[in-house]
Amino acid sequence: MALVVQKYGGSSLESADRIKRVAERIVATKKAGNDVVVVCSAMGDTTDELLDLAQQVNPAPPEREMDMLLTAGERISNSLVAMAIAAQGAEAWSFTGSQAGVVTTSVHGNARIIDVTPSRVTEALEQGYVALVAGFQGVAQDTKDITTLGRGGSDTTAVALAAALNADVCEIYSDVDGVYTADPRVVPDARKLDTVTYEEMLELAASGSKILHLRSVEYARRYGVPIRVRSSYSDKPGTTVTGSIEEIPVEQALITGVAHDRSEAKITVTGVPDHTGAAARIFRVIADAEIDIDMVLQNVSSTVSGRTDITFTLSKANGAKAVKELEKVKAEIGFESVLYDDHVGKVSLVGAGMRSHPGVTATFCEALAEAGVNIEIINTSEIRISVLIRDAQLDDAVRAIHEAFELGGDEEAVVYAGSGR
Amino acid sequence: MALVVQKYGGSSLESADRIKRVAERIVATKKAGNDVVVVCSAMGDTTDELLDLAQQVNPAPPEREMDMLLTAGERISNSLVAMAIAAQGAEAWSFTGSQAGVVTTSVHGNARIIDVTPSRVTEALEQGYVALVAGFQGVAQDTKDITTLGRGGSDTTAVALAAALNADVCEIYSDVDGVYTADPRVVPDARKLDTVTYEEMLELAASGSKILHLRSVEYARRYGVPIRVRSSYSDKPGTTVTGSIEEIPVEQALITGVAHDRSEAKITVTGVPDHTGAAARIFRVIADAEIDIDMVLQNVSSTVSGRTDITFTLSKANGAKAVKELEKVKAEIGFESVLYDDHVGKVSLVGAGMRSHPGVTATFCEALAEAGVNIEIINTSEIRISVLIRDAQLDDAVRAIHEAFELGGDEEAVVYAGSGR
Repeated sequence: MALVVQKYGGSSLESADRIKRVAERIVATKKAGNDVVVVCSAMGDTTDELLDLAQQVNPAPPEREMDMLLTAGERISNSLVAMAIAAQGAEAWSFTGSQAGVVTTSVHGNARIIDVTPSRVTEALEQGYVALVAGFQGVAQDTKDITTLGRGGSDTTAVALAAALNADVCEIYSDVDGVYTADPRVVPDARKLDTVTYEEMLELAASGSKILHLRSVEYARRYGVPIRVRSSYSDKPGTTVTGSIEEIPVEQALITGVAHDRSEAKITVTGVPDHTGAAARIFRVIADAEIDIDMVLQNVSSTVSGRTDITFTLSKANGAKAVKELEKVKAEIGFESVLYDDHVGKVSLVGAGMRSHPGVTATFCEALAEAGVNIEIINTSEIRISVLIRDAQLDDAVRAIHEAFELGGDEEAVVYAGSGR
Repeated sequence: MALVVQKYGGSSLESADRIKRVAERIVATKKAGNDVVVVCSAMGDTTDELLDLAQQVNPAPPEREMDMLLTAGERISNSLVAMAIAAQGAEAWSFTGSQAGVVTTSVHGNARIIDVTPSRVTEALEQGYVALVAGFQGVAQDTKDITTLGRGGSDTTAVALAAALNADVCEIYSDVDGVYTADPRVVPDARKLDTVTYEEMLELAASGSKILHLRSVEYARRYGVPIRVRSSYSDKPGTTVTGSIEEIPVEQALITGVAHDRSEAKITVTGVPDHTGAAARIFRVIADAEIDIDMVLQNVSSTVSGRTDITFTLSKANGAKAVKELEKVKAEIGFESVLYDDHVGKVSLVGAGMRSHPGVTATFCEALAEAGVNIEIINTSEIRISVLIRDAQLDDAVRAIHEAFELGGDEEAVVYAGSGR
């Protein structure tokens, strides 16, 4: 008998019918002899509908109230799933994040989990109930206000609960049936992976893969929780995320997959005076605006002009703000201009095998060159190579790299409606 | 400066636009120098939509989960109103019933308030915030589960908060602008009352008036909270419910109003053997089924047959169940049959003046006789006369009594769309 945590995303819960299907799976898991804890996101369109209502009464709603509003969504879905479970012969109790002991910081809209003390969940399990916990929410340790956990919050809730309960596995259900060697919509012969290590999944998530959110993978790795990525539309086993690259024998280490990301933009600050502190000042201005930077490129300064260009990438969502903040300090730092380019894309190759196979970088760059793709910035980690290219060439680049490293499988990749989340 | 509690019903909150109007009134009340606490019901259709979703996944949903589901509605409306208030230049925090310290019994769907300890509400007021509290809900003292308060729950929440906070007034807003001498839709010259005593309001509510719920009026009377019934569509002062009939000088005591009720049915148990305990057994069977009885009529038993008929009224909602339970004991008690009649209606005259004016009953019955209305059962209290008649004659009866006691005013009664709640 195992303790299983299952998380169902919004598209798996988008109607009364889907809710009943999800309840069937939960009841089957319970009847197989397992203790079952379920985390549900809000039903399909609920969060968007609530956001729309909020916008209608206040274009800039206070964050505390936004959290009170949005958490109604998970309350609705979890109690409905509990009811559906009862209709199918098992017993279930639903709990809010607060009731389930999810304690967080007080940053509304992006709270971090500080601790999980799920005594009411444990009690429910001991009494033979399925316990449902509203995802994406918790209670602030100091103010006792309700908080939401930011993007990927329901995945994080599920993994954090699994860690606190010492669960045997945390199953994340959506409309994709696992982690693939590349996005199946771009690469028709992308292959589903049976397993992926934590570090590789972290790199894939950070490089644009939307299957799992970075924070939940970090949490899983820290507490050693195995994650299974599965589809709520089939019984396929999915992909298991577990283990460390340290545990993989060198000779078995592989290249795992290709990720791509269209969400970044590029900023180039031109003609930066080449004196100590100019670059630091530029990055400090960006940091003070609470904007994260991804890739950085600094050219060698021209011996003629004594100036250089500094280029970096960031999320498109922060683009306008970053440009504004830099323009403010133009005179102070003395650079020439700020250029903004949002037609860039990032493609990444991830694999533990990179560490032990020299020539991966060479093969990577050759594949891109043969596909006519120009590399603007390159950035690597121990198990990842990322390059910034023109976004129009992203699909070609992904396919070229996938081909060059022979990642394709024989079966046609299965893509469900609404695939991606 | 006063402490004002305002309650807004679902129809006052049915759209983003209505929410903004309500916020305007709240902000105006605050800016006039008052401390303001607001209780909101769920937006117009929300509760029905949630009930419908529940039915789709389980025709007989567990009550604990039903409470978790329905309370999402008040969470949504209160946070939206808080946002609307913020957009209009005041500050507001919304709280769940639990956060506001509303502690209840654990009877899901019909919990009673045990205590209200609104420390977070008081804190919010001290910091200059408008405090919003979700109506219709609380937290069970023993299980710590979320509960809903049954019919009129939001009114009860508002009055209970007003009592706990020692508020100067509790304003109940709906789409009617006060308590009238009769339902304005039935009696065109019905007059709006300026004030009504607690006892008279209790009788009106118990006799079919839907303006205020019985439980909230009882609560207000017990704790001396003045209630003002007002329309959210106008600035009219409404009707104030306060004071006791004991405080009204005898010579000023009036006849206050006429109420009518279509929600009851009549059961007649025929041929009941006239021996000790037969009637008691019949009423015990009904009581054990947790069904309330209103009016009772027992004829003198026939000296010939030694049998009698016992008639009583009850809510139509319990009709089928009552008949079923009685049929079960037919042989045991030995009566002849159970007759069920759901074409009855009740009309009541209420007024403190009844105590000191003999002849009220005579005038009442004469008015009905002249209108051709037959009285089937009569039932009185110190300040109320109620009769059971054919439901088809209810409107005529109401008008005849209203006329006979000269309750009409000069102005045409104002009726808003959706009037009645």
